Amino acid sequence: MKRMELGKAFTLMEPGPVVLVTTCDGQKNNIMTISWTMVLDFTPAFAITTGAWNHSYAALRKSRECVIAVPAVDLIDQVVGVGTCSGADTDKFEKFGLTPVKAKQVGAPLIRECLANLECKVVDIVSKHNIVVLEAVAAYFDQSRKEKRTIHAVGDGTFVVDGRRLDRRKMMRSKIPDGV
Amino acid sequence: MKRMELGKAFTLMEPGPVVLVTTCDGQKNNIMTISWTMVLDFTPAFAITTGAWNHSYAALRKSRECVIAVPAVDLIDQVVGVGTCSGADTDKFEKFGLTPVKAKQVGAPLIRECLANLECKVVDIVSKHNIVVLEAVAAYFDQSRKEKRTIHAVGDGTFVVDGRRLDRRKMMRSKIPDGV
Repeated sequence: MKRMELGKAFTLMEPGPVVLVTTCDGQKNNIMTISWTMVLDFTPAFAITTGAWNHSYAALRKSRECVIAVPAVDLIDQVVGVGTCSGADTDKFEKFGLTPVKAKQVGAPLIRECLANLECKVVDIVSKHNIVVLEAVAAYFDQSRKEKRTIHAVGDGTFVVDGRRLDRRKMMRSKIPDGV
Repeated sequence: MKRMELGKAFTLMEPGPVVLVTTCDGQKNNIMTISWTMVLDFTPAFAITTGAWNHSYAALRKSRECVIAVPAVDLIDQVVGVGTCSGADTDKFEKFGLTPVKAKQVGAPLIRECLANLECKVVDIVSKHNIVVLEAVAAYFDQSRKEKRTIHAVGDGTFVVDGRRLDRRKMMRSKIPDGV
């Protein structure tokens, strides 16, 4: 998977795709499905909503690292599967045929099958609101992947797939960071 | 616009649409375009990223109220227009032909032309990360509106329109709150 400029990586998260978040507790890799995410700044920093109700949370808090992997629509059943079982009793990489790939700057693995991967460090945990603040330190995008449409969880068990793309670059120029 | 059950309102925000956020400083209504949002819980509570760089922020902080209005794709040019000028020198409702509608529990107005509207109270401001935590207190959905596809800002001046919807309700049943 090819490196992507960090300054463009927020564009992977801003549209709100459902993502897979990997962690490593020092021994075991795990994955959780997260739909509650937000961009915080262009560096990029992100927020995700998670807490002790997710088995991955302990590893995330301990290691202070994770990978955000962005799946495309052809992985929808893996995304739902990962989100409906627990790492407490399941090796999710094995169960769902996903391939962990060694990251460069964090212990959590990239997911080979995903469209994009973001290596992230935990910057802060706002426990009161179950918000984990992340800073991405490396980004990868699989340009060679044919299916690039991402999916958006509605929250009622349905998912909306990316449709057509509208260009408003000219109107937006004043608001877009240089180089994006 | 018809009332919507509060317990289902998170499904408006979870897919990550770009939204319009209205405020009222006691005298003037204003609107900002916000793409950096996140669900925090099903009640529903939301987080948005904003700060002093947005003219609306002062009114949001002072009134501790706002409305999140969800536009559909036919409003894309209003969404971009609202996001690229300032309430400091512009009456955005007038400039973009949007109609303020009196809300029930907050001073900020609903936007008649939008697909959905959420009256929100500010619960907390996490200044360190520019996160405003909101709780929705009333929700409305315009079922009669023909165009219901929302738009997702990519952040580079392009926008992805909702495509088709995939149903995974059966697989997801264990994770969906009752009644959603």
